[in-house]
Amino acid sequence: MNKSIIAQLTEAFCCLPGVGPKSAQRMVLHLLERDREGGQHLSECLAEAMLKVGHCERCRNFSEAPLCEICSSARRDESLVCVVESPADVLAIEQTGHYQGFYFVLMGNLSPIDGIGPTELGIDRLLARCDNDVNEVIMALASTVEGEATTHYISEALKQQGVRVSRIAQGVPLGGELEYIDGGTLSHALNGRQTL
Amino acid sequence: MNKSIIAQLTEAFCCLPGVGPKSAQRMVLHLLERDREGGQHLSECLAEAMLKVGHCERCRNFSEAPLCEICSSARRDESLVCVVESPADVLAIEQTGHYQGFYFVLMGNLSPIDGIGPTELGIDRLLARCDNDVNEVIMALASTVEGEATTHYISEALKQQGVRVSRIAQGVPLGGELEYIDGGTLSHALNGRQTL
Repeated sequence: MNKSIIAQLTEAFCCLPGVGPKSAQRMVLHLLERDREGGQHLSECLAEAMLKVGHCERCRNFSEAPLCEICSSARRDESLVCVVESPADVLAIEQTGHYQGFYFVLMGNLSPIDGIGPTELGIDRLLARCDNDVNEVIMALASTVEGEATTHYISEALKQQGVRVSRIAQGVPLGGELEYIDGGTLSHALNGRQTL
Repeated sequence: MNKSIIAQLTEAFCCLPGVGPKSAQRMVLHLLERDREGGQHLSECLAEAMLKVGHCERCRNFSEAPLCEICSSARRDESLVCVVESPADVLAIEQTGHYQGFYFVLMGNLSPIDGIGPTELGIDRLLARCDNDVNEVIMALASTVEGEATTHYISEALKQQGVRVSRIAQGVPLGGELEYIDGGTLSHALNGRQTL
């Protein structure tokens, strides 16, 4: 016998991150009982997004147009490029409202073991773009082993081109109590101390 | 300016229970980055379910056919009907594998203040159905104020028809330690004690 539509939908919901069989069932019953319109709307938005969202030609971020909103903005500072790992990082930095430059989204980190080299991350494109008007490239990758390796690779290549490279500060988070902060972070914070 | 497709999809995800803007964003980026096929499939399942899933004519549970799987099964015990509040309760009882009778799903509880009376819950249909072959009706509603009121209303009506009515046991849950159980549950458990 074929699976019922409800069982199929419950399974389909399980492809979402953080959603297991129990929450999937709750979602299905909620939509069926109380929000069929919302479910219909979600279905349409999903279909459209999966089909139409591609990558920005310039920064590789997700975009439905050839150039994303940020790259096609005239108000941004052309001389600054911030290199991040994923579109979520762009959203996080944009939410601070403090950064006015452009981005470059690697969509991953160097990982030779998975076959992800400089070409897969579009690093050649980043280097080509940083030839002319760019004054400074800000590296904002995670401080994991892969992130550090990628930061090192890119910054070396950019320095050879004569571009100024910086990285975001590593230290204690705002409101963090010293006694609960791990040793690695603390020693980075000590090394990166600034004169008052 | 119109909202981007990604922003629209993120908002649409927020209609799911337990999903706020942050998890919605995580879902959208996950699907776009890693599972477009899954997203496409989810969209199709959703559209189909929202359109095609209705209610079983007999038990009012969700069903794509006029009669649900349980009601159209020939292996079930015709003499037993279990009254529950929602389709999730049916799934929970079915998972025990212990119950072989039929169900009646109220899709809510009596709540005169919200305009939900016996007709809205299909209680007339339940009474009509319990005329002939049904030996026992098992009430399995929550022991909230509304649940208790609904249980009382239905059991009185059924008793007048001469049908035997029971309710599922209230007591300490399996593996529950006495010291952590609330007083109300404990006094129910004492009252409902059984001879060994």
